[in-house]
Amino acid sequence: MNGNAAMLGVDIGGTKIAAAVVTSDGHVVGFNQRHTPAADGSEAVVEEALTVARAALAQSMDAAVVGCGIGTAGTVDTHGVITHATSALPGWAGTDVRAIFHRALGMPVVVLNDVHAMAIGEGRYGAAVGSADALVVAVGTGIGGGILHDGQLVIGASGSAGSIGHVPVSIPDRRRCPCGGWNHLEAYAAGPAIEARYAEVTGLPHRLPTIAAQARAGDSVAGTLIKEAAELLGRALGGAANLLDPDIIVIAGGVAALEDLITEPVLRGLADEALPGPRRVRIGFSSLGAAAAVVGAASIARDSAAHRPEAR
Amino acid sequence: MNGNAAMLGVDIGGTKIAAAVVTSDGHVVGFNQRHTPAADGSEAVVEEALTVARAALAQSMDAAVVGCGIGTAGTVDTHGVITHATSALPGWAGTDVRAIFHRALGMPVVVLNDVHAMAIGEGRYGAAVGSADALVVAVGTGIGGGILHDGQLVIGASGSAGSIGHVPVSIPDRRRCPCGGWNHLEAYAAGPAIEARYAEVTGLPHRLPTIAAQARAGDSVAGTLIKEAAELLGRALGGAANLLDPDIIVIAGGVAALEDLITEPVLRGLADEALPGPRRVRIGFSSLGAAAAVVGAASIARDSAAHRPEAR
Repeated sequence: MNGNAAMLGVDIGGTKIAAAVVTSDGHVVGFNQRHTPAADGSEAVVEEALTVARAALAQSMDAAVVGCGIGTAGTVDTHGVITHATSALPGWAGTDVRAIFHRALGMPVVVLNDVHAMAIGEGRYGAAVGSADALVVAVGTGIGGGILHDGQLVIGASGSAGSIGHVPVSIPDRRRCPCGGWNHLEAYAAGPAIEARYAEVTGLPHRLPTIAAQARAGDSVAGTLIKEAAELLGRALGGAANLLDPDIIVIAGGVAALEDLITEPVLRGLADEALPGPRRVRIGFSSLGAAAAVVGAASIARDSAAHRPEAR
Repeated sequence: MNGNAAMLGVDIGGTKIAAAVVTSDGHVVGFNQRHTPAADGSEAVVEEALTVARAALAQSMDAAVVGCGIGTAGTVDTHGVITHATSALPGWAGTDVRAIFHRALGMPVVVLNDVHAMAIGEGRYGAAVGSADALVVAVGTGIGGGILHDGQLVIGASGSAGSIGHVPVSIPDRRRCPCGGWNHLEAYAAGPAIEARYAEVTGLPHRLPTIAAQARAGDSVAGTLIKEAAELLGRALGGAANLLDPDIIVIAGGVAALEDLITEPVLRGLADEALPGPRRVRIGFSSLGAAAAVVGAASIARDSAAHRPEAR
């Protein structure tokens, strides 16, 4: 098997589906992206993902694509089947993603969690290159994460390692998390949490980019609410830094676009919680952006191909 | 170098110093233990540790001991020097433990954090044998931890990985942690925290074993306070399980002796916080007890000897 062959990377998220062909040096060819038809159920999501994947393949016809890696929302078992998914993708749990894509695309397929794929992408080609211990945190509709140790992904016993959205934050308030728990980070610092809090205070149903624009324009309510959420994110990162002691934490996902607004409160929250050693962790921001999970999934497909017996 | 040779293991904690000779199959010979003369400063601690170490060597005269591993309180750099220590060992920071013991004992010495050593001990010879991802949590005077991934210790960028005592717990109360932070686990669930809370409620300055005995005898205040601390410990373990997704969490340290009192509230707290996958983590209790760090430190010394060039 040719370890330098191009791989197809697919990213199936709760709001967007993306795909591209990725060369062995991480070059992204034919990247395209569509809205996830989540409300239409898992078959519609699969169809749309196949359409996006085929479009990527069509745009890179000169490259021989010999495998496919898929990063998907939800928890993935070792066979590439979704064992658990949130309400963002109704009916997604139980989907045999690996088998479906293998049959449809006629190439070997590996499947992993989308944030795990993102972490691998940033670790091998992005903001965490060269670090021994990294934590990549994706803050968007939800909050997920991926842990890299010696450049390898820590998957965890149930495939859920890195789920920093569900660590408790210390706050006198009490808020339900989408997972059903109480006072988890995701209930305060994910996009919808900031939007809900903004609506609570102002009565306006603005989306996060609008709230951020207002904060930049000097609106003190918008600025304060983003700052509060970012400081809680920083506090959770400080606790995670004490536990993991990484050399870098990379912030990815939609909220990474608010780098100018959140860096200072994140650092302040982190410094308040972290021990003297872990406090020295570098904070970085995604350098692969929307392509991170696609690049990471393709890279995992390459690993898998390198370990596959020729006979298969 | 003979990989089967016996190694000296030394455990320098804030309250006790222990040492033993450990054979390659984890057999402990000449284990002995003394009180740490912490208040007398670092030279006194070193002297006492050497006395305990020499006593262990003397009791196992027939075994050829060719290296020494030391697990010590504090953060240890890659040269075996203490970079940071709590007030439990005044003056310990800055001590070149490796050089001092190498000179005094005339054998190669490796140094690591005591809880890291404990985790290695439990992972290779104790309660976490055979697990791919383990978290060993030592609950005693303080709360520390060690993460094992694929059987190897995760040390962290600054040598502090596993510091679960310093993750935030979610509680309406507000309490200062010995590290200077607020509302960290250690401020609520370590031995002194339970003792302080008991004194607050009853006015009695009892030590934890006494409080535990009273709880077992049916004293409802003692029982409730232990239960509350254990449930918070469980909640923190639930958050850590979401982040690390280990297959086992091993509870070690002095509080492990309260297994009968804490198991149920720990499991309840964990179930409240953990996601469906991580919730399936096994909870175990130390099987090596007071010898865990000695066994782990000796095992790390054996690793180090196996990688040492013959010429050295």
